[in-house]
Amino acid sequence: MEMSSKLLEKAVAEISQLPGIGKRTALRLALHLLKQPEEHTRLLTESLQKMREDIRFCNSCHNISDTDVCLICANTSRDRTVICVVEDIRDVMAIENTSLFKGIYHVLGGKISPIDGVGPSQLNIVTLIDKVKAGGVKELIFALSSTMEGDTTNFYIYRQIKDYNIITSAIARGIAVGDELEFADEVTLGRSIIHRVPFENSIRSL
Amino acid sequence: MEMSSKLLEKAVAEISQLPGIGKRTALRLALHLLKQPEEHTRLLTESLQKMREDIRFCNSCHNISDTDVCLICANTSRDRTVICVVEDIRDVMAIENTSLFKGIYHVLGGKISPIDGVGPSQLNIVTLIDKVKAGGVKELIFALSSTMEGDTTNFYIYRQIKDYNIITSAIARGIAVGDELEFADEVTLGRSIIHRVPFENSIRSL
Repeated sequence: MEMSSKLLEKAVAEISQLPGIGKRTALRLALHLLKQPEEHTRLLTESLQKMREDIRFCNSCHNISDTDVCLICANTSRDRTVICVVEDIRDVMAIENTSLFKGIYHVLGGKISPIDGVGPSQLNIVTLIDKVKAGGVKELIFALSSTMEGDTTNFYIYRQIKDYNIITSAIARGIAVGDELEFADEVTLGRSIIHRVPFENSIRSL
Repeated sequence: MEMSSKLLEKAVAEISQLPGIGKRTALRLALHLLKQPEEHTRLLTESLQKMREDIRFCNSCHNISDTDVCLICANTSRDRTVICVVEDIRDVMAIENTSLFKGIYHVLGGKISPIDGVGPSQLNIVTLIDKVKAGGVKELIFALSSTMEGDTTNFYIYRQIKDYNIITSAIARGIAVGDELEFADEVTLGRSIIHRVPFENSIRSL
């Protein structure tokens, strides 16, 4: 699109580098900022810049953090013997939102995926194995996505810690609460039957 | 959503101030920037900041510009006797993309809309009337959107310039090139019949 301002053109080009944002949306956002007081743009750019420069990752669980050790790991009321293994910090946020998990996390930073060139060494796997080896861990909960890559990653970790006498579990897969059976895929429905739970437990968990 | 970093939380809050961007998308964008080299964030924030601080509006047509007079107004090969009146700088870009208009523009900056509290004084109407009064303008082409507000604005301007002996026109409304008649709304189809053009012209314009 032809623009009468190089400054606008440059800003639109930069905004449209962001994932899921096309040229048209980028232009809309840029024009919005131009209509707002300069203060708005300053607050936006400063917060982005500050986030990018100052954010750290927790030394222990690799979760995003403003300090060397994240608030979850530093919280003494959390059960440090139960570790939930997740791909991404977004998964930590999602589980934290349930308020039902009292253990700590370990963020791998991805899944093993040879096609994308991601091997075990690019993920935070060694630090997880070391935690198990160091003792004090009772249970590892695998909460990776149920894809081939997720399964591969789970299995890779499992093989290295299976001799350490800890419980390993995986989050339950099944029909979402409120969903209709007829619209569920067969694999999910099949798993939900095989991994059925005692009726009293099913009431309690709701 | 609970986040383990205040820096991230702040950035997400700022991003989600943008129109059409929710919390979830804002988080996705913030995490994307965190995964990219710091350079990316720097280029983005600098271009936004520079755009917001340095951009100007053309003294003559109120189009967005890096200089006091925009490139279109400053272009001596454009016909300064024909002025196309538009709401927004996006309309200028859209018409420029057709490469079919050789006149100049006048950007009103909106439409008269009492409901939204926008009166004639908030728009760039006086400078347009002054241009007409100063002489040298042969034709005014109204290219506002065909809404009640657009029609009101057109008529408001028309009343003030109708005694100055210039041609006033409005862009053609009709069935879009390539569209099927059966899916067109009645108003558009009706207008396209009333404002039909000589067959030879219709071929030429394609």
